[in-house]
Amino acid sequence: MSIPQRVDEQALGLRLDRFQIETPSWGYADTGTRFGKFLQDAAARTIDEKLADAAEVHRYTGCCPTVAVHVLWDFPPGTEPEALAARAAQLGIRIGSINPNVFQDQCYKFGSLANRDPEIRRRAVQHILDSIEIGRAVGSRLLSLWFADGTNYPGQASIRQRKQWFHEGLRAVHDALPGDMRMLIEYKPFEPAFYHTDIADWGMACAFARHAGPQAKVLVDTGHHLPGCNIEHIVAFLIDEDMLGGFHFNDRKYADDDLTMGSIDPYQLFRILYEITAAEVQLGHDLDIAYMVDQSHNLKPKIEAMIQTVMTAQEHLAKTLLVDHAALARARACDDLVQAEQILKDAYQTDVRPLLADYRRARKLPADPLQAFRESGYAARVARERGAGKPRDGSSYA
Amino acid sequence: MSIPQRVDEQALGLRLDRFQIETPSWGYADTGTRFGKFLQDAAARTIDEKLADAAEVHRYTGCCPTVAVHVLWDFPPGTEPEALAARAAQLGIRIGSINPNVFQDQCYKFGSLANRDPEIRRRAVQHILDSIEIGRAVGSRLLSLWFADGTNYPGQASIRQRKQWFHEGLRAVHDALPGDMRMLIEYKPFEPAFYHTDIADWGMACAFARHAGPQAKVLVDTGHHLPGCNIEHIVAFLIDEDMLGGFHFNDRKYADDDLTMGSIDPYQLFRILYEITAAEVQLGHDLDIAYMVDQSHNLKPKIEAMIQTVMTAQEHLAKTLLVDHAALARARACDDLVQAEQILKDAYQTDVRPLLADYRRARKLPADPLQAFRESGYAARVARERGAGKPRDGSSYA
Amino acid sequence: MSIPQRVDEQALGLRLDRFQIETPSWGYADTGTRFGKFLQDAAARTIDEKLADAAEVHRYTGCCPTVAVHVLWDFPPGTEPEALAARAAQLGIRIGSINPNVFQDQCYKFGSLANRDPEIRRRAVQHILDSIEIGRAVGSRLLSLWFADGTNYPGQASIRQRKQWFHEGLRAVHDALPGDMRMLIEYKPFEPAFYHTDIADWGMACAFARHAGPQAKVLVDTGHHLPGCNIEHIVAFLIDEDMLGGFHFNDRKYADDDLTMGSIDPYQLFRILYEITAAEVQLGHDLDIAYMVDQSHNLKPKIEAMIQTVMTAQEHLAKTLLVDHAALARARACDDLVQAEQILKDAYQTDVRPLLADYRRARKLPADPLQAFRESGYAARVARERGAGKPRDGSSYA
Amino acid sequence: MSIPQRVDEQALGLRLDRFQIETPSWGYADTGTRFGKFLQDAAARTIDEKLADAAEVHRYTGCCPTVAVHVLWDFPPGTEPEALAARAAQLGIRIGSINPNVFQDQCYKFGSLANRDPEIRRRAVQHILDSIEIGRAVGSRLLSLWFADGTNYPGQASIRQRKQWFHEGLRAVHDALPGDMRMLIEYKPFEPAFYHTDIADWGMACAFARHAGPQAKVLVDTGHHLPGCNIEHIVAFLIDEDMLGGFHFNDRKYADDDLTMGSIDPYQLFRILYEITAAEVQLGHDLDIAYMVDQSHNLKPKIEAMIQTVMTAQEHLAKTLLVDHAALARARACDDLVQAEQILKDAYQTDVRPLLADYRRARKLPADPLQAFRESGYAARVARERGAGKPRDGSSYA
Repeated sequence: MSIPQRVDEQALGLRLDRFQIETPSWGYADTGTRFGKFLQDAAARTIDEKLADAAEVHRYTGCCPTVAVHVLWDFPPGTEPEALAARAAQLGIRIGSINPNVFQDQCYKFGSLANRDPEIRRRAVQHILDSIEIGRAVGSRLLSLWFADGTNYPGQASIRQRKQWFHEGLRAVHDALPGDMRMLIEYKPFEPAFYHTDIADWGMACAFARHAGPQAKVLVDTGHHLPGCNIEHIVAFLIDEDMLGGFHFNDRKYADDDLTMGSIDPYQLFRILYEITAAEVQLGHDLDIAYMVDQSHNLKPKIEAMIQTVMTAQEHLAKTLLVDHAALARARACDDLVQAEQILKDAYQTDVRPLLADYRRARKLPADPLQAFRESGYAARVARERGAGKPRDGSSYA
Repeated sequence: MSIPQRVDEQALGLRLDRFQIETPSWGYADTGTRFGKFLQDAAARTIDEKLADAAEVHRYTGCCPTVAVHVLWDFPPGTEPEALAARAAQLGIRIGSINPNVFQDQCYKFGSLANRDPEIRRRAVQHILDSIEIGRAVGSRLLSLWFADGTNYPGQASIRQRKQWFHEGLRAVHDALPGDMRMLIEYKPFEPAFYHTDIADWGMACAFARHAGPQAKVLVDTGHHLPGCNIEHIVAFLIDEDMLGGFHFNDRKYADDDLTMGSIDPYQLFRILYEITAAEVQLGHDLDIAYMVDQSHNLKPKIEAMIQTVMTAQEHLAKTLLVDHAALARARACDDLVQAEQILKDAYQTDVRPLLADYRRARKLPADPLQAFRESGYAARVARERGAGKPRDGSSYA
Repeated sequence: MSIPQRVDEQALGLRLDRFQIETPSWGYADTGTRFGKFLQDAAARTIDEKLADAAEVHRYTGCCPTVAVHVLWDFPPGTEPEALAARAAQLGIRIGSINPNVFQDQCYKFGSLANRDPEIRRRAVQHILDSIEIGRAVGSRLLSLWFADGTNYPGQASIRQRKQWFHEGLRAVHDALPGDMRMLIEYKPFEPAFYHTDIADWGMACAFARHAGPQAKVLVDTGHHLPGCNIEHIVAFLIDEDMLGGFHFNDRKYADDDLTMGSIDPYQLFRILYEITAAEVQLGHDLDIAYMVDQSHNLKPKIEAMIQTVMTAQEHLAKTLLVDHAALARARACDDLVQAEQILKDAYQTDVRPLLADYRRARKLPADPLQAFRESGYAARVARERGAGKPRDGSSYA
Repeated sequence: MSIPQRVDEQALGLRLDRFQIETPSWGYADTGTRFGKFLQDAAARTIDEKLADAAEVHRYTGCCPTVAVHVLWDFPPGTEPEALAARAAQLGIRIGSINPNVFQDQCYKFGSLANRDPEIRRRAVQHILDSIEIGRAVGSRLLSLWFADGTNYPGQASIRQRKQWFHEGLRAVHDALPGDMRMLIEYKPFEPAFYHTDIADWGMACAFARHAGPQAKVLVDTGHHLPGCNIEHIVAFLIDEDMLGGFHFNDRKYADDDLTMGSIDPYQLFRILYEITAAEVQLGHDLDIAYMVDQSHNLKPKIEAMIQTVMTAQEHLAKTLLVDHAALARARACDDLVQAEQILKDAYQTDVRPLLADYRRARKLPADPLQAFRESGYAARVARERGAGKPRDGSSYA
């Protein structure tokens, strides 16, 4: 049908330059399922190893200058945040979003901000306030909040009472934010809670964010929706409500599978990014959205998986930049669905890999970051260094 | 485990007296699936027949004094609303919620309030304003809004633009409401739109309602959720936000199956009603919620199906009234999940049919309305009267 | 990563030449949802108009020489099958699969082959036997069976008893097949039955087919699966069991949405076709699979929608023909998941539209069939001819 | 509506006497989600503690005489199976089904019976053959097989090749079975594999069982289905095919949540058990089905959760024994769906707890096993004994 308009490679390159994707420290470590972890010799064991790996990803892709950190796992007692930030800087990267952990400690068995015990609620808030301080110390402008809070059985707790406790806790957190820090509230329908999850969908995250204050926005994890959910609709709705704060990128087929982005449904990824591009084109400026990867499964080599995801994100954003908005508007103006759909598909079907190879070469990056990393020998080297000290088996389910 | 507290039959009866359930005029007519209708001789053909049938349901159950009407189907040109209201009154019932129809006419092929054509948007608003007038004329205090608007294919339309048009239309409708009329906004994830539905979930309905004005609330149709969705959580959340306006009762196993209430998942129905009872007990007064049936499938005899649903609703509300709230609070106060769950289950497992039989007898109603109706001969009689004039086949799919 | 091997355009062309896709007569007619039909002036009203439209699709695509017919809708009493076949031949096409209809008539309210009434079961079998005769008369080698049979409520019928009746009926049908005719058994999880559907999944269809006899195989409709179902896994499994008989192509986001193929999840379509290509490459010959379109929704112009689907099918089959099987085998042999996945993605991401344009030009077909059809004026012409006699509104839900 | 026929308490008691439910050793141990375990002081640490706990469940319920064992976790090297069986006997219980583990060891990262490495496939088969020997030694007649095998990404492996390897492995296992031992093959749609699971649904399990040999049957885990799946339909189908071997009982709302049975959807549990009762009534004898619990989540106290599930199973079986089969047949014979459904609901709504209390008292069991156990002090005692040696925190996700 319609042929994509002549691509303005320069404009495309400039937009890609501003598309920075944060990788998560925990995506470099050994993780698994409840049935156990399959350990990788090359997986990082410490925050320094995670930073080193993240720096590799940035070295080959050029678009991952920041690393999300997880306070519990990355800041064991005695860690100096400023020193860590300095070590990151030496590697050419920065500390990005700060992720408190109020779900792993045994005290959170029945919840954190929604725990019926005021002492535990206080402790959870304090941990988040401490996390804000870490963020301040390392120069982060993002507090990223995911709560595992919920119940496993009907009757276990008062849903409305827990909602009130969440309002209180999130308000307290918002009050402590520095003026230039955002808090992002993530939602998830289930797991690890299996009856009700206190922040289960975008509507709840949005309500909590609005109650908390103006620096609170919603975080969309692409894997946190019920089957069939139209995620790009939610994204468009949140943009229009000025409540979209960021993404956790990954893919899924069933539940929260945490697979690499676009590995299952790449056209959905295109449609999500298209809603952003469409809004930006209309508004004439970039939206202030934090793009973060949150994937963590245990079969793919960690760094390769991360580079795959980052390349996939770039490719699909690039595809959305090829959409002929004027032609689309004309097709819509006469309810020509076939033509309107074809215009999206024309962009989606275009093979943008040559474009991206050119883009990278122009920035002195390898044309194929994944291939270049595979040839670098880094993985084999760190596998030797790290593998020696590793345990020989993962955790046991029972 | 715990034994239900001695039931206060009087309090239970008084609460049941205030639990009035509206039945829908279209639930008495022949309906079907896209593959065709299976016609019933006894199904109503006209609004007068529908009112007569609804009056039968009220006669046997005593708790269905109002009938939801559908403007397109029930108010053909020339209908005098006041005369209709008078005929309903003669039958011992009243006109309840007013349901505009902006989805069936060919002009709504690409939407109503979200149609790109301003003329069609205007026409849709006008139909709703006319519906408000009908409501005023018949003494209704409820405008119930369901929109089929959406798109079938990616790219078909601008999601955000359509959202803006919905804001405009709903605001215009709200501005025209009499001071004592509420508008309820219903959501639905899909069907008849199969890519995106403009009001797809409770969060969107709530956002539209808030933008429209204070008389707008959310309508929860129990069949309009994605698989796995925790509906009682949404209900509790909406109660706490003071945004729950009403229900459309039915049940489902797969999509929007419109089966009789509690026929597939009665424990879910109990849990939904429990959230209401729990809130009412805590607040000390009834919530202002419209309870309406919206079921319409084509195998069960219409009136029997309606009575079944109404009895099921009463039974499950009664079960929630047996919950021992004090014991539940104690169990929750020590995180005793097993005991807390058992307290709900104790109420749920209680066979309340004898209680309800007593309740009905005390109000001079048949102890078993379904049995009494079946023995009345009404169905056979109207089948003879109505069946003669019916077509011999339903619609054809293709 | 890996670069697709030099494409053997000739081999690709030969495989595409053998990839013939049947279009359904009902896909050219007005259809809709239970909420009504949106009528199109250009939609076909009679079997002759449907054949004419199907011939148009074949004219522009060159790969749709057969049309599936629906006995009830296309062979009204008095139709001469041979004459119809002759008229099709004049248009350059043939009658393909024969689709009985044992779901629309009022007598099938409670089932066809599984109806408790032996007279209705007999009537359903007879209709199918008559359909076989029609197939024989028109030279068809395919009997395509979809049953709407099921129940709407727990308890309504004995599931095992109905299963026995299905065995009996399907055996009787199989016994009547000419030696060169196949019967395909379709499965569907729900709709129009909303509690249980007698042939609900591939395992049931396969069991029924095996009981019926060796000429019975399974028909996979891509829209007939529960959320999350891995369809390509089922396809691979059925291939290995030698039980895959054919496809009904369409796409879906929620239920059985009957959208155009690949409009929602094109990568899934690629993976399904890849399983076929992989088996064919390994076995060294084509699999005997009937590829049929079954889409029928009501917003897109009918012929355009059909051409879109056919082009999408060709494009995605072509992509699977680009997979580098040798490289894939090497990657799998060392559990290199990243590389193995990239090999699939390399093929998927390749823009095959230029290849297909060349392929078509070489066969004297328009390089862009959709564009060529749009420019032909056919749609406008038949809209004028057919639109005049059409009713002005679709069916009413209630 | 209809009143349940006078209950034949004696017949009901005799059927309940034959309804024995196996509890799993791993259900007494600390388990959790991928996000960590919440440890319970009272949870069992060793097979002896697990046996002791299982014996407690049997002591209070009288219907759980066997314990499923997990070879990897319960038979560490050096364990004497006969000695273990003797210790169980001293506690008044027996070893039940034997569950090999070919998913936790690092060598199974890419599969067990479907691993591309023949050495690992051989090792997996050998582990299962060793498990058969353990079964023989302890007097078990059940080998219960669950495989985590699958892939996480498209392209990762050949689905058909892996199917062939599964056929080979399962055939080898079947060949080694003693004549009085059954092997049950479990299916699961996803987790821990997130793209494809080699044995994903009942149809695949059934095909593998048929290929393996006559002692192989299908194991239905109630939590292993896609959303909306009609499990009772599968159960009825498998009964009719003589392929239903056993159950793993638990409940779920979202994925494989492993909650206590009937905690989310008790009416579904009733419908599943009804299909069994209906078949048994028709056939005149019990079906040979192994009833096993497989639940393992981490908030409820382990023994209480097990007793809850067992009581729930008994209650719901008892309800199915109240179904008036003759009345149901009459209602079905005239397509009276409302009456047919009411007959099921009459049984379901009956409060059978008094019946079960009488039943238990007559067998010198506590009328309320859960209450009796809670009052026994056992949990507090073992918490003191076991808690001291426990670690203070669960596993960490990353």
